[in-house]
Amino acid sequence: MTNTAQQNDLANAIRSLSMDAVEKANSGHPGLPMGCADIATVLFTKVMKFDPADSKWADRDRFVLSAGHGSMLLYSSLYLLGYEDMTIEQVKNFRQLGSKTAGHPEYGYAQGIETTTGPLGQGVGNAVGMAIAEAKLAAEFGSDIVDHHTWCLAGDGCLMEGISQEAIALAGHLKLHKLTLIWDNNNITIDGAVSNSDSTDQIARFKASGWNTIEIDGHDQAAIEKALLDSKKSDKPTLIAAKTTIGFGAPKKAGTNKVHGSPLGAEELAGAKAALGITYPAFEVPADTLEAWRAAGRRSQNVRGEWQSRLAASASKAEFERRTAGELPAGFANAINDYKQKLSAELPKVASRKASQMALEVINAIVPETQGGSADLTGSNLTNTKETLPFQADNYSGRYMMYGIREQGMAAAMNGIALHGGLIPYGGTFMCFTDYARPAIRLSALMHQRVIYVMTHDSIGLGEDGPTHQPVEHMSALRAIPNLLVFRPADAVETAECWQLALESDSAPSILALSRQNLPTVRTQHTTENLSAKGAYTLAGELDAEVIIFATGSEVAIALDGMKLLAEKGISARVVSVPSMELFAKQSDAYRAEVLGNAKARVAIEAGTEMSWNKLLGDKGRFVGMHGFGASGPIEELYEHFNITAKAVVEAATAQL
Amino acid sequence: MTNTAQQNDLANAIRSLSMDAVEKANSGHPGLPMGCADIATVLFTKVMKFDPADSKWADRDRFVLSAGHGSMLLYSSLYLLGYEDMTIEQVKNFRQLGSKTAGHPEYGYAQGIETTTGPLGQGVGNAVGMAIAEAKLAAEFGSDIVDHHTWCLAGDGCLMEGISQEAIALAGHLKLHKLTLIWDNNNITIDGAVSNSDSTDQIARFKASGWNTIEIDGHDQAAIEKALLDSKKSDKPTLIAAKTTIGFGAPKKAGTNKVHGSPLGAEELAGAKAALGITYPAFEVPADTLEAWRAAGRRSQNVRGEWQSRLAASASKAEFERRTAGELPAGFANAINDYKQKLSAELPKVASRKASQMALEVINAIVPETQGGSADLTGSNLTNTKETLPFQADNYSGRYMMYGIREQGMAAAMNGIALHGGLIPYGGTFMCFTDYARPAIRLSALMHQRVIYVMTHDSIGLGEDGPTHQPVEHMSALRAIPNLLVFRPADAVETAECWQLALESDSAPSILALSRQNLPTVRTQHTTENLSAKGAYTLAGELDAEVIIFATGSEVAIALDGMKLLAEKGISARVVSVPSMELFAKQSDAYRAEVLGNAKARVAIEAGTEMSWNKLLGDKGRFVGMHGFGASGPIEELYEHFNITAKAVVEAATAQL
Repeated sequence: MTNTAQQNDLANAIRSLSMDAVEKANSGHPGLPMGCADIATVLFTKVMKFDPADSKWADRDRFVLSAGHGSMLLYSSLYLLGYEDMTIEQVKNFRQLGSKTAGHPEYGYAQGIETTTGPLGQGVGNAVGMAIAEAKLAAEFGSDIVDHHTWCLAGDGCLMEGISQEAIALAGHLKLHKLTLIWDNNNITIDGAVSNSDSTDQIARFKASGWNTIEIDGHDQAAIEKALLDSKKSDKPTLIAAKTTIGFGAPKKAGTNKVHGSPLGAEELAGAKAALGITYPAFEVPADTLEAWRAAGRRSQNVRGEWQSRLAASASKAEFERRTAGELPAGFANAINDYKQKLSAELPKVASRKASQMALEVINAIVPETQGGSADLTGSNLTNTKETLPFQADNYSGRYMMYGIREQGMAAAMNGIALHGGLIPYGGTFMCFTDYARPAIRLSALMHQRVIYVMTHDSIGLGEDGPTHQPVEHMSALRAIPNLLVFRPADAVETAECWQLALESDSAPSILALSRQNLPTVRTQHTTENLSAKGAYTLAGELDAEVIIFATGSEVAIALDGMKLLAEKGISARVVSVPSMELFAKQSDAYRAEVLGNAKARVAIEAGTEMSWNKLLGDKGRFVGMHGFGASGPIEELYEHFNITAKAVVEAATAQL
Repeated sequence: MTNTAQQNDLANAIRSLSMDAVEKANSGHPGLPMGCADIATVLFTKVMKFDPADSKWADRDRFVLSAGHGSMLLYSSLYLLGYEDMTIEQVKNFRQLGSKTAGHPEYGYAQGIETTTGPLGQGVGNAVGMAIAEAKLAAEFGSDIVDHHTWCLAGDGCLMEGISQEAIALAGHLKLHKLTLIWDNNNITIDGAVSNSDSTDQIARFKASGWNTIEIDGHDQAAIEKALLDSKKSDKPTLIAAKTTIGFGAPKKAGTNKVHGSPLGAEELAGAKAALGITYPAFEVPADTLEAWRAAGRRSQNVRGEWQSRLAASASKAEFERRTAGELPAGFANAINDYKQKLSAELPKVASRKASQMALEVINAIVPETQGGSADLTGSNLTNTKETLPFQADNYSGRYMMYGIREQGMAAAMNGIALHGGLIPYGGTFMCFTDYARPAIRLSALMHQRVIYVMTHDSIGLGEDGPTHQPVEHMSALRAIPNLLVFRPADAVETAECWQLALESDSAPSILALSRQNLPTVRTQHTTENLSAKGAYTLAGELDAEVIIFATGSEVAIALDGMKLLAEKGISARVVSVPSMELFAKQSDAYRAEVLGNAKARVAIEAGTEMSWNKLLGDKGRFVGMHGFGASGPIEELYEHFNITAKAVVEAATAQL
């Protein structure tokens, strides 16, 4: 290690602030910031392209702290670099309610936090998505406008999580050469030595996935700089395995799990500062060190100015700015309306997954920023259209991601694509396998990202593949996630409406739950208004009907049949289609009261389990749906077998009258 | 390829039955059974140890078809080998409602199906768990009683799923040398060539995780036999990369994705049979071929007889039989009762995670079959006790799995351990990360396996780590899974009761949701009866109280405080602790009506979201809990901030009166 005194001063400023903040909060993770301070110093002061004065500069390099528990590394650096909102007061308020310095980095809390991390491995997937977005946009707008690097710092935990393999394999396959993953190779996990639970040769593992690899001493700033710069020259993504000492400088706890996730304690903290030569008080960085950091923060101002000049002179300026602002093209809403009108005239009887593809044909033709894909179920999810040529290593202009059988990797990459900006990602798999993607779906919601999940085969309607492939609890389980829009459209018209809503939703992700089986068009009268936007609306019947039947998706047609059977018995009924419970919950009390009405009987029908319906059903209502796992068999037999029929609707209604 | 005519006849019997069954069902996956028929033939007729006459023989080799869509490979083989319940009628009824031959192999449907597969990669994790169980039981009972191999057949999809990396890395670390994974290396996925989405060098990848690797032509039966036998000699787990042709024999579709998941069609089927030399009618295997298969099925009868003699002579016979029968030791219930009595006398104020560890100290001392573990959060989950020495490559007698940061791999391995028999697995992580394990948790439930998930830090009570680590929707989302017992105990007594219920539950997995923070003992009066077994019960207050307050876990104490505040206002209230909604739903109508009573106001308090409570709350009831994601901050401030307080209980109650 041959660091100069100034190099050490810069790194020690991170260490000092991080130790102090964790100590003051009496909670947090000092080990990573102390261990990775040299890496962060070199990356932020010498290599990365960014400007604290314009934290959203579209062509900035991205940095992802996948090992999110080391959040003080990031907060310290942002403060030192001069990000305006990251004040020393924020650093002092680490982990306090309402501060920008949450326990783990939270996207949107402070400038320079590119993604929310903490659930391990997710950041690796996000970084892959960001690198995909960069490659796609560079292919589209040219390297004069888009040419930046994605840097990811990951720990042993990130690399043990299975999602990392999905992300690594995808990145290697796509030769995402503007992606560098720095592995904080410190041999320590929470339970002790990595060797307790892992013996993986990570270098060999990354090589097996087509990565360039570099091994360095993670405390040698010259070696770090060379490795970071070398990684930019590779034609493959690069792993930098940086050997570090967790809690570097702590006299007794360095190199052990004792320094991972707890404050050092006063004595150890004092010892660490003494060992590191830190003589200044807590939270006070010497002026010369701070100014060196701040100067480094201003380092790319000229580069940004030149970029702005190039953009100003570019014919693509308006389109690029529209795309990075996340605004949909003019004419989008009209196109959807025209298409809806056509549907209500032609009354197609198609599966809602097919209706989704039909809607996508309209959308992809006029919304160039959609970036489609599937986790190897393209022919089932019908997520492709004539515009969606594959995005591959030899053609980054493609609009379709062949994600492979990697649902979680897909979802995490889509988060990264959305966070990067300029593209709207959508991707498909079977509804049942939302379970695989769930940690990343939750983060889409937590981060308010416009990510669209095209989840087909959304019930026992899947048929013969059986209970492992039939979602049953999934509608309720997804509706349980805050800030996630869960759509289950009834026909081609609602499918188009739900796609519109998903694309227009700029602060929440969407799930589209789509049928395998054909569904009749139930929206036979065209409305310019997007009825699905209200979440629930009366599709058929009079407001004063005796029975109200709530239904979604493939069961709306069954509800309409039930309504007819009831009419034959002289019982009036009303069918309320509920494409989105979340949007219905946001309507005015008056509208909700009107839709709920005061029928004597309430029935809900959905080919899933009951939990999410109890609120609408109330004390008296009855549910027609699943009460356990599904079964393998032809669809027609399954609906009869599980008693999800018009007759069951009638029985549920009449039992209440 | 030098197969003899008889070798081909044996393999073609699998191919013929599989093609016919898929064709008759007009649904299914012929490609894998045709491509892997040679592998299955050699494995089942020459290498594996098992006896169709005793499909549950404890010392049989295990076979896991991780690529579960190739189910006809398994069904054909089971029929050919002479498993009594796998009749030709069952084969003809492939994918029909009520048949044993579901679209994907379903555990419990037919003998010889060792696990439910279909969700890709899960079987790899199950196989690792089975190999762990074998190693542990062999260390405990000796190789005279336990000495068998685990075989897993996996496809490209299994290897792309992240869970496979978790499983592979764990198996390599643990040197599970009695595990062989055969990779059906056919270059094809559903969307086309593997090269569309993956470029991984699988051999190098497995070597990086410490595996032995062998590459063969998967249609050369002599090479297959040598590889399978060689794999048993390794001191590491073995990957056999078997190059195969998907849909082997199909004249036009072989080697393409067209043969993966659809019937061949009459013409292609006829062409395939002609090419393979299959001249016999559909579903009719020639007598000599069938008898050769049946003879192979009887091949291990002597070995089983010798094993039975050894067991009969063993001093461990009774214990081994108790363990494999899944019966708990005599005296278990009494020990729990004694422990409960002690708690109600001593009234500890401890976190329920600590209470869980205290209960485990009692349990592990008298239940030798518990196999504990954690996904690298031992000090947080408190899943260790003084009996739990680590299970490591150099000490397979250990009772504690250091699973690493691999929640899904842990859950899938626990499924494998439970399916193997002889052990009861439990494992811990943070409640929030049940999301990572969810696909495997669902399979625990679908397969009715006694797997116990110890999920700590079960709410915003986690504090400063913030929203990525604070479960909010998870209680509802887990309660939504059919056949899963979700326990949230209120104190040390309920924690002991819930542990008892989880251990006694032999047909459903359990989740124990446990607090980070300390909780007072609320069960101050000892009862011999396990009150938690009823799912919900009146903890305090009179049956005719005006207000009923439902609560779970850490919020029960708040509910009791709310009851006191109400009493000060002259309002009578009753607190109902609800450790398990699932068990409460199973009680008699009379009991449930008694618990629900006819209070004028209903309140539920839980530091999670509302969805699962609506059924108990009904039209009028009010919920005190979370309405979105959490936040980073000290616990006391968070409860105030989110208004989960006794005062909020009072307000919710009085608003209804």
